[in-house]
Amino acid sequence: MKKILSLTVALLAGVSALAQQALFSGAGVESPVINPDGTVTFRYVAPKAVRVTVSGDFLPTQKLEFEMNGQKMSYDAPGVGELREGPGGVWEYTTPFAVAPEMYTYTFSVDGTQVIDPNNVFVNRDIASLTSVLLVPQAGAHSDLYAIHRVPHGTVSKVWYHSATEGFDRRMTVYTPAGYEENPKAKYPVLYVLHGIGGDEDAWVTQGRATQILDNLIARGQAKPMIVVFTNGNISQEAAPLENSTGYTRPTMDLPQTMEGTFETAFPEVVKFIDSHYRTIAKKQSRAICGLSMGGFHTLYITLNNPDMFNYSGMFSAAIGTGSEQTAAHKEIYADVDAKLATYFSRKPALLWIGIGSTDFLIQSNNEFRAKLDAAGYPYKYMETDGGHIWRNWRIYLSEFVPLLFK
Amino acid sequence: MKKILSLTVALLAGVSALAQQALFSGAGVESPVINPDGTVTFRYVAPKAVRVTVSGDFLPTQKLEFEMNGQKMSYDAPGVGELREGPGGVWEYTTPFAVAPEMYTYTFSVDGTQVIDPNNVFVNRDIASLTSVLLVPQAGAHSDLYAIHRVPHGTVSKVWYHSATEGFDRRMTVYTPAGYEENPKAKYPVLYVLHGIGGDEDAWVTQGRATQILDNLIARGQAKPMIVVFTNGNISQEAAPLENSTGYTRPTMDLPQTMEGTFETAFPEVVKFIDSHYRTIAKKQSRAICGLSMGGFHTLYITLNNPDMFNYSGMFSAAIGTGSEQTAAHKEIYADVDAKLATYFSRKPALLWIGIGSTDFLIQSNNEFRAKLDAAGYPYKYMETDGGHIWRNWRIYLSEFVPLLFK
Repeated sequence: MKKILSLTVALLAGVSALAQQALFSGAGVESPVINPDGTVTFRYVAPKAVRVTVSGDFLPTQKLEFEMNGQKMSYDAPGVGELREGPGGVWEYTTPFAVAPEMYTYTFSVDGTQVIDPNNVFVNRDIASLTSVLLVPQAGAHSDLYAIHRVPHGTVSKVWYHSATEGFDRRMTVYTPAGYEENPKAKYPVLYVLHGIGGDEDAWVTQGRATQILDNLIARGQAKPMIVVFTNGNISQEAAPLENSTGYTRPTMDLPQTMEGTFETAFPEVVKFIDSHYRTIAKKQSRAICGLSMGGFHTLYITLNNPDMFNYSGMFSAAIGTGSEQTAAHKEIYADVDAKLATYFSRKPALLWIGIGSTDFLIQSNNEFRAKLDAAGYPYKYMETDGGHIWRNWRIYLSEFVPLLFK
Repeated sequence: MKKILSLTVALLAGVSALAQQALFSGAGVESPVINPDGTVTFRYVAPKAVRVTVSGDFLPTQKLEFEMNGQKMSYDAPGVGELREGPGGVWEYTTPFAVAPEMYTYTFSVDGTQVIDPNNVFVNRDIASLTSVLLVPQAGAHSDLYAIHRVPHGTVSKVWYHSATEGFDRRMTVYTPAGYEENPKAKYPVLYVLHGIGGDEDAWVTQGRATQILDNLIARGQAKPMIVVFTNGNISQEAAPLENSTGYTRPTMDLPQTMEGTFETAFPEVVKFIDSHYRTIAKKQSRAICGLSMGGFHTLYITLNNPDMFNYSGMFSAAIGTGSEQTAAHKEIYADVDAKLATYFSRKPALLWIGIGSTDFLIQSNNEFRAKLDAAGYPYKYMETDGGHIWRNWRIYLSEFVPLLFK
């Protein structure tokens, strides 16, 4: 009896899959495999290939240098591992070390062509690239926050609002905490979370694991239940690539209206939409904002231009000091920073939080900004981590920032 | 000035991307390209490869035969196109015909290893396989419903409910139509949409384009605003693969409690959750259910065992006649079908809708079911389309079924 059912199931699924060009891909090898000793094995089937490598942030990085605004800078390029060919054209690489608990991304290069792992369906998109994901969770490690646990889960919604600034509807992601629907009289504080260049309203949810982090921190009692709003900071865009009325176009980071003031100017319309559509505590004491890279830059200027809006602001690897303010369409957003800082701090915000990696190419401009704060005696919290301008750091910063909110 | 900003943007994004192993993948070739004459060109860079093919449902299918329950059956396997190598190791294939407007999936085979298109970030997952997506929209064609238009968009939410049957929280996708939040007194009818084996609560949204279909039909006035609930029909599973507390495990279609009655038995708890958490019109006249393959099988038995629950039922390529009922844990769900049919039809449901492809391997069992209905004089609507057990048909069936609801 069991056999009959299994056969039927296999036929149904198999046939359906075949018809959808969805046969199990790869050649049945397992990849990646986390071994009992903590090493990780990657496999790729390519009988005719000459060279197969794996590149990912679980490998030691290589320091590469470049210049920006006449300054010499460097960043951490991902390391590379060489796969060796075995029987049946199965190429294999095992890390020579136990891989630390974290969420990593990797790709293979097959004779120079970058491909994702055909045997791993866990995929992230970043701008126009796909990468395979390796999650090594471990109780007690940061990465444990990125895993799904049997705790109450919030609702994650794709929501459209009308942007009067742009004249069309735009998409955001909204997290409402577990219990939101069951407690129709409860009101919640709101955290706004902004992405970097090339990201969109999906980035923090996919690469950032933000909703898992929120679910887990709230379940542990380490964070207050809160509404979290992930905006799309590409103001000229309706939504993430492939979700636009322009149809399928290759995603690009070279979008109009980038870091020139329009997004910051338009931000109050987002807050207004959220306060009118969700049960928020609509006041400064219960509002926070943070963002990574471009989103850290946005966070700074949205905060400074709306000194009564946010009580908590977090700048994660903030892209300050790039000079984009000089070419801005809305120069007023970036003008009079010293006066705006004075006003902002005079209203006694609960928290300005700054986090950056020790090898981030933006650390110098962040150090200069901190020196300015120090000179004026303005209070802030600072966290410096290993590594550069990478998602690993941004997930850690979010995990550190959220527990400090709405206390 | 423009140049400085562009440089900054490129550096920020490029460096960030590099650090995440997210450099633009492939080698900068464009693929796929819809040419002005309607043909489509696919490209893949592989200087050392011996043979590169593309396989997809835009190509003529091949009929393959197999046996099920002693009956000879056949299905449409996807066609294959041969790429030719050109300068720089760029392989290329252009269809010898204009590709009809539709949403297609395809993969490359590089010396036998199946990979997705590294230059196309539009990817669907089906069970444990990834496929690249090609959307050819055209006004007036069905595929125009699958594209995003500048119309009011509903909200798409990932929602968790507690399953008393299973004893843990499970995830569903809920679509609330545009205007739901702005009209806090309005109540809405509800459509439940069920997936097939290997699918989950994401399948209809990604491969099925269901939320685009709903947005567009409602905006055209061809469908009533409605709440749409996409359940996860794998009752032993918390959620789609990678969203479970079991962590990252390779998705499988061989799940416990498949097509053995537990899902159907537990279904009223889903309806109860929706009616208690959304502003529904909580009565039979305003409830519909439909599903594809296994979901069509679920639809039939949920409908028959709850004759006062649904006024509209749609069976899309329903997986009836596979014999799974005989090994069921809940045999009562599948027992006394004739009596249940008599009761169901005596309550005069508004619509039983049956759709199937002319080459679907399940057409014979569906024909037998229709013969039974005909013999008893029970009314139903029937649609037969070209092709087999494929998503193209299921999107069309949903597009045809939804306008008939709640009139």
